[in-house]
Amino acid sequence: MVTVCEVGPRDGLQNEPTLLPLEVKAELVRRLVDAGLRRIEVGSFVHPKAVPQMADTDRLCERIPRSPQVTYAGLVLNEKGFDRAVLAGVQQVNFAFAATETFNQRNQRASTQESLDAFQQIARRAREAGMRCALTIGAAFGCPFEGEVPEERIVGFAVRAAEAGADEIVLADTIGVAVPSQVSRLLRHVREAVGNSLPVGVHLHNTRNTGYANAYAALEAGATIVDAAVGGTGGCPFAPRATGNIATEDLVYMLHRMGIQTGIDLDRLIETAQWLEAQIGRTLPGQLMKAGGFPPPGTGLSRAG
Amino acid sequence: MVTVCEVGPRDGLQNEPTLLPLEVKAELVRRLVDAGLRRIEVGSFVHPKAVPQMADTDRLCERIPRSPQVTYAGLVLNEKGFDRAVLAGVQQVNFAFAATETFNQRNQRASTQESLDAFQQIARRAREAGMRCALTIGAAFGCPFEGEVPEERIVGFAVRAAEAGADEIVLADTIGVAVPSQVSRLLRHVREAVGNSLPVGVHLHNTRNTGYANAYAALEAGATIVDAAVGGTGGCPFAPRATGNIATEDLVYMLHRMGIQTGIDLDRLIETAQWLEAQIGRTLPGQLMKAGGFPPPGTGLSRAG
Repeated sequence: MVTVCEVGPRDGLQNEPTLLPLEVKAELVRRLVDAGLRRIEVGSFVHPKAVPQMADTDRLCERIPRSPQVTYAGLVLNEKGFDRAVLAGVQQVNFAFAATETFNQRNQRASTQESLDAFQQIARRAREAGMRCALTIGAAFGCPFEGEVPEERIVGFAVRAAEAGADEIVLADTIGVAVPSQVSRLLRHVREAVGNSLPVGVHLHNTRNTGYANAYAALEAGATIVDAAVGGTGGCPFAPRATGNIATEDLVYMLHRMGIQTGIDLDRLIETAQWLEAQIGRTLPGQLMKAGGFPPPGTGLSRAG
Repeated sequence: MVTVCEVGPRDGLQNEPTLLPLEVKAELVRRLVDAGLRRIEVGSFVHPKAVPQMADTDRLCERIPRSPQVTYAGLVLNEKGFDRAVLAGVQQVNFAFAATETFNQRNQRASTQESLDAFQQIARRAREAGMRCALTIGAAFGCPFEGEVPEERIVGFAVRAAEAGADEIVLADTIGVAVPSQVSRLLRHVREAVGNSLPVGVHLHNTRNTGYANAYAALEAGATIVDAAVGGTGGCPFAPRATGNIATEDLVYMLHRMGIQTGIDLDRLIETAQWLEAQIGRTLPGQLMKAGGFPPPGTGLSRAG
């Protein structure tokens, strides 16, 4: 069993030029829940001036369908954001920082040490509040400012996150430069370091067409959580012409046909991707919504998932 | 060492709506050779009425740079085509057929048995002429008419191709439905059946975004040849809105960053993809030509390949 974490409403839409109205975002989340998604990152509890696309996350949380089966997550970078996440009623907070000093200073005006300290506070408060708490290590496979990132550095961060009480650790290929052998190696080392009982996930971008290969390598190396965005929304500020997150429906197609269950209804997810494409008004990079599943539904041919 | 077989001039251009002039095709091949490609499928020696895009393959072969390091291949389906291939001076003939009776009847008006018999003749003549001879088994991972294709069927074809004297066997995901675990399993079984001394390759389409994951799985399972088309040209008649072959430059990026050498100059290959995009006049699906390599050339940051 693999947990597919839908990050379209957050990382996807945050990097789309089109701003979607609150009602459309709420319908997106409803459609995702109806398609069987059980983990959805709905938005960010950061300053609205920093990320205007996410300014309505608190209000969005008032309009999404609640169910004991669905875990909503929100990005949180400080205690003020944590307070908003509690009020919004999400079950999980995701903290994130970039693995290199240059990238983290530019993005969060903090050293990695300061970010880890902040995470420790968030993790403690999440524990007290009975919420799940995940840490995402950004630029874990390469940094646009510093180039290659030493593996020991990532393993060190993961160990400290585990000590701070993270419920899961996600390694993010923020700028989409990772290759599968690298993903496989880093995943194995992190899992060895933090122990097999702590779930490790990956957040992958398809910027250089390696995203799905990296997902496969991560799963082979024991990852149990994979982030993806329906339709493959999003992008990369460092590569404006490139594609964004891996598309949830394309990931799910691959998983199902490999015999890995997700609980997701692929046909409904493809419909959601097509619907979202119409809302955003540009051709999205997801391929299943163009090519269809296999064997095609309705043909009577045997079908894996 | 992995042999990257460039199939852009054949499978790529054959499925592009834009017909390129002979001179442009010749320049494409020259640019590919300059970028370090050492195996190029330049065209098809089939009836010009069947595939008008390939009608100029004989003339193209008069205009391409010859070098002992470069192996040119041409698609050949019968003895008449073989005669043309000899006259054109290609060093390798590629024979192909589809793994299911329905698909092969529609494409070649032959049973798979008749196609295998024809291959036997071609393989014998290639041996006599001192040419290499490859067999591609199409729809090896799924058929648009028959659905799933039994693995034993493909293994059986591979054994018979080996007995007929194939110099290599290529498993083709003609309609882009394969997933990595399937590629891995079939590759292992075929290699066990034909012995480790016979090279086995894969021909992958990225129709459902699994192409690069499948390439990785194939390499892990011992494939030594991977087909790809610069820029990711081509398409799929069964999924008109979908993408085509995996892009050579994106594959090479993945290989180099995994530490697998190819002898190919990635920067020149990216330039060739950009040049080809301008010639074809539509945005091609290759991502490296949009996102650039990593770390970016000229930044002074350490670089893997």
